[in-house]
Amino acid sequence: MIKHMNAIPIKNVTIDDSFWAKRQKLVRETVIPYQWDALNDEILDSEPSHTVENFRIAAGELKADYYGQVFQDSDLAKWLEAVGYALSVKRDEKLEAIADGVIDLLERAQQDDGYLNTYFTVAKPGKKWTNLRDDHELYCAGHLIEAAVAYYEATGKRKIIDIMSRYADHMVDVFGTKPEQIRGYDGHPEIELALVRLYHATGNNNYLELSRYFVEERGQEPYFFDIEESGRTEHRVARRKADYFQAHLPVREQKTAEGHSVRALYLFSGATDLAAEYNDLELLDVCKELWKNVTRKRMYVTGGVGSNEYWESFTVDYDLPNDRAYTETCASISLMFWASRMLQIEADREYSDVMERVLYNGILSGISLDGKSYFYVNPLEVWPSACDIREDLRSVARTRQAWFGCACCPPNIARLIASLGQYIYSYNERELEWFVHLYIGGNAYQNIGGQQVQLTQQSNYPWDEHITLTVSAEQPAEFTIALRLPGWCKGAALKINGEAVNLATYKGYAKIKQVWHNSDRIELVLPMTVEKVRSNPKVRENVGKLALQRGPIVFCLEEADNGDNLRDIRVSASSEFTVSYEDGLLEGVVVLNGGACRTDETSYDDNSLYTTVPFDSTNVQVKAIPYYAWANREPGEMLVWLHEHV
Amino acid sequence: MIKHMNAIPIKNVTIDDSFWAKRQKLVRETVIPYQWDALNDEILDSEPSHTVENFRIAAGELKADYYGQVFQDSDLAKWLEAVGYALSVKRDEKLEAIADGVIDLLERAQQDDGYLNTYFTVAKPGKKWTNLRDDHELYCAGHLIEAAVAYYEATGKRKIIDIMSRYADHMVDVFGTKPEQIRGYDGHPEIELALVRLYHATGNNNYLELSRYFVEERGQEPYFFDIEESGRTEHRVARRKADYFQAHLPVREQKTAEGHSVRALYLFSGATDLAAEYNDLELLDVCKELWKNVTRKRMYVTGGVGSNEYWESFTVDYDLPNDRAYTETCASISLMFWASRMLQIEADREYSDVMERVLYNGILSGISLDGKSYFYVNPLEVWPSACDIREDLRSVARTRQAWFGCACCPPNIARLIASLGQYIYSYNERELEWFVHLYIGGNAYQNIGGQQVQLTQQSNYPWDEHITLTVSAEQPAEFTIALRLPGWCKGAALKINGEAVNLATYKGYAKIKQVWHNSDRIELVLPMTVEKVRSNPKVRENVGKLALQRGPIVFCLEEADNGDNLRDIRVSASSEFTVSYEDGLLEGVVVLNGGACRTDETSYDDNSLYTTVPFDSTNVQVKAIPYYAWANREPGEMLVWLHEHV
Repeated sequence: MIKHMNAIPIKNVTIDDSFWAKRQKLVRETVIPYQWDALNDEILDSEPSHTVENFRIAAGELKADYYGQVFQDSDLAKWLEAVGYALSVKRDEKLEAIADGVIDLLERAQQDDGYLNTYFTVAKPGKKWTNLRDDHELYCAGHLIEAAVAYYEATGKRKIIDIMSRYADHMVDVFGTKPEQIRGYDGHPEIELALVRLYHATGNNNYLELSRYFVEERGQEPYFFDIEESGRTEHRVARRKADYFQAHLPVREQKTAEGHSVRALYLFSGATDLAAEYNDLELLDVCKELWKNVTRKRMYVTGGVGSNEYWESFTVDYDLPNDRAYTETCASISLMFWASRMLQIEADREYSDVMERVLYNGILSGISLDGKSYFYVNPLEVWPSACDIREDLRSVARTRQAWFGCACCPPNIARLIASLGQYIYSYNERELEWFVHLYIGGNAYQNIGGQQVQLTQQSNYPWDEHITLTVSAEQPAEFTIALRLPGWCKGAALKINGEAVNLATYKGYAKIKQVWHNSDRIELVLPMTVEKVRSNPKVRENVGKLALQRGPIVFCLEEADNGDNLRDIRVSASSEFTVSYEDGLLEGVVVLNGGACRTDETSYDDNSLYTTVPFDSTNVQVKAIPYYAWANREPGEMLVWLHEHV
Repeated sequence: MIKHMNAIPIKNVTIDDSFWAKRQKLVRETVIPYQWDALNDEILDSEPSHTVENFRIAAGELKADYYGQVFQDSDLAKWLEAVGYALSVKRDEKLEAIADGVIDLLERAQQDDGYLNTYFTVAKPGKKWTNLRDDHELYCAGHLIEAAVAYYEATGKRKIIDIMSRYADHMVDVFGTKPEQIRGYDGHPEIELALVRLYHATGNNNYLELSRYFVEERGQEPYFFDIEESGRTEHRVARRKADYFQAHLPVREQKTAEGHSVRALYLFSGATDLAAEYNDLELLDVCKELWKNVTRKRMYVTGGVGSNEYWESFTVDYDLPNDRAYTETCASISLMFWASRMLQIEADREYSDVMERVLYNGILSGISLDGKSYFYVNPLEVWPSACDIREDLRSVARTRQAWFGCACCPPNIARLIASLGQYIYSYNERELEWFVHLYIGGNAYQNIGGQQVQLTQQSNYPWDEHITLTVSAEQPAEFTIALRLPGWCKGAALKINGEAVNLATYKGYAKIKQVWHNSDRIELVLPMTVEKVRSNPKVRENVGKLALQRGPIVFCLEEADNGDNLRDIRVSASSEFTVSYEDGLLEGVVVLNGGACRTDETSYDDNSLYTTVPFDSTNVQVKAIPYYAWANREPGEMLVWLHEHV
């Protein structure tokens, strides 16, 4: 078995800390109800959704036209999936009743053969499976399957699993290499990882096999999307290149992440699942090479990926412009999905470091502090005056929006936060190793040697460097606790029951193998110094620049604190930043205050655009806030990468 | 009279130096014949033109469809104008015969009422003057008028002046505030400045009045383009905002340069002409304010303007991204037109410095050394790998093209180089002041006090700092020679007949008033040190960066000399650059060689995209070439603004 461990599932994990618990509560109490209203078009002054209405029309209960994107169904799916996770954390009768109503509606909208997609049922009857490239049927199916698994695991109610199994059975019939089957695959990956989840929930091996088929068939010659297109008379969208769909090569021959970033990372997540399920070392090597390409050459310091607004795509190695960073929230989320999958195969902080980076930065920036507005695009630099007029910055929003015509991101971030529990711990059954990947306070349970062992984490992470873990077990139990020592941390220290322990680390994890007794207490200190981060000098955009990071949090400057023309602020590698927690600011954040310099305005002639006279500098105090919290005050400039004053 | 002086016309100026004479010869012997072939579709593997063919169709001599842009006629007009200037410099029977043939063709294509536009004659009969906003009739008319004046002044042949006067008379009838007239104006300014030229050539005041009408009417309420549009059933192009056409406000109320950059600067050139003609101080103040906005807030160090590819437009103050600099060659040329017009009103190096800057950099980069290929877009930074994939860099070419579907730039640069003689000197009749704006070797003649006085300039400019001017006059003559001391120059020194003279300067001109005798000799030294130029710190893009300039020449680094990842090269303000002329390189250029540093590749882990470990630097030698000469070798990276190593 190449897969070493399994994530400890949400049901066995409680989050009880000062940072995430309130966000999970926000998702449960505000975001999920708010998004339900959005899906029902009850939010004033926002983009319409019609998502629920489309299902009513498909069920024959309402006469109206289909409205929305071809993948509108997936918004409801992701919402339902978030509900599943929320119920895993805390049952809620009222919410469950709404969700059960949605599931009943799905059943009524399902066709006799199991097919379930409102766009084709309502708008294109008779045309199903005729445009896999553009029309997102398998994508929507995948999200519905993920929702089904989440809801079933939370509630034990099989209905939605049965609905989606019928749909999956239909797909098993339709797709494959037999003469009567469609030898095709999806334009937007998602079904691949979803079918693996459905296989785990049901034990039906057909679903795993179908997932494998989709991954292996992709990119083979003759090129399916050409064959498919030649059979269509209607051409709804402009022809895109094969690499947009990651179908330019068979997956096993891909070495770089190309095309639409969310599609790419959903595909790679599915491929990683299959490598694990089939013990496929060759496919794992492909995933590792792709992982290196993404995270070592094409990822922002925030964990954001996909630097190109056009086609929402990857571009070339080291092309990471900050003001035009597209870095869709969904792409960040998909990177976390993939990281978590790679991590279960191999406990290497290579993966968990990225997971943490993108979680606290590129993902969290996607949602406002009040949970009611969202960024689709997450730039690392914003100069509003230029954004107002430049077409090449047209996608850069200065404020989060209430909803979107293409509303993939809001429910995606909701399901991610609701499911956060499952990213914290893994357990290696064979070696009896309990891995701690993320430092998030709360409890987790794991059956070890026949008894439920509990691990309680306490910390004020990500603001504070002290983490305490306490074991609760009726009987002493021998197992390993493996603690991630984050890549950003220098000088981690560990005590067990008050006594310092030497850290023996393997791939970034400190492993403590011993007999654990009830109330055994681990104190971990992960010194959170303010770090000045540099990019690989091949990142042309960031040459001569520094980013501020403390712990997992990447910081930025905002105009609200520092005035405008933030690029003119220069920070020295040696400048000291004081760390302080401001309770009243941005719902409580650590801020960094430090000395910097900027041009002395009296030292240059503002009537002159170019000069040979050097400018004088003047010392200024700058204040940096966590990147994720930007744009929660008045709109203005924002900057992550600061010029270094040498 | 607010206008102080007049340019000494081409006919009285001979260029005989090592830099421009060969370029004028290139235009005469290569570019004009090459472009004639292009206009006749005889260049293989380039965009088709059909320009001459369109005129044959309009003349009823060929049955075919109109082909090309609505402004295709202007390509022939600018070519003919260039021919006029070339003939002013040197008569050429064969070329004149071709041009006379073109003029005969224009006459045959002209309608009975004087109207002359092949697009409407061939493709839209009956629709003339119905879409002034989009269809460029007045723009094409303006270019034909400029061609007519140039050809007439060169050859003394009136035919083309008569043709265009008939056309202008027709316009005088059609446009204005009388009830039966169209109360409109052009979408693309050009006619304004052209009518002033026709007025000077013919003395017909109607043309001057019509120009004034166009400028004054522009931007008035009710908004003409709306009225015009409401009368059309056909909507060929997407609605653009009024500021795209500089019609968002009456010209006298405009304070910033908005919209399409070429349109803006042609308009401002025309407005400057009118300010001069009507002694209109208020309009001159408007022009001065616009001038300051353009040159102090919206101009690249190369003199390029219009930083936005979308709508080829100005954006906001200090928004000057280097890799996305649009800086169309035509926009640079139009800045030179405007600068020269401002300069005749007021001898201030504010204007002539800009004229020189844009000439030697942003304009000259538009044409290859062999004269056969052209840049439409002139960026200040190119990273080919990113240009290959990024839509926001789609307009950035790495190599000059042979021709364009929209081929405005090639003939524009041809006419500019052919007419260069007229930008060098001015004469103030009232004060008897002979101004030298540009240091270009050759002779010029001016009638002073009844005799022809000649000034001979000798230099190896722009490479060498020594300039010699010699007076030739049969009789001693008292007048002032006013020499521009360029803004880039510190420590200019002057000798007259070997004796050092103190420099008394006024607005950047050293004025020497005396009785000049035959063979009087002025030796001017303009020390050409290598300067490190900085931008106003509000130019966010260039904070912490330097550009290299020597004399009027802005330098750049190319990959061919310096390897890739040019952004990683850092130059210190104190680093010494040696200046050497390389005869065999790029047809002879001065290059700068100096010390810089770049990241020591052994000091960082290339597997890590982000690190807290500072990198070591290593010393490297860099070689900078003149910006105008880039992209004449193998394609690769190019960079003007270099990181400063403090």
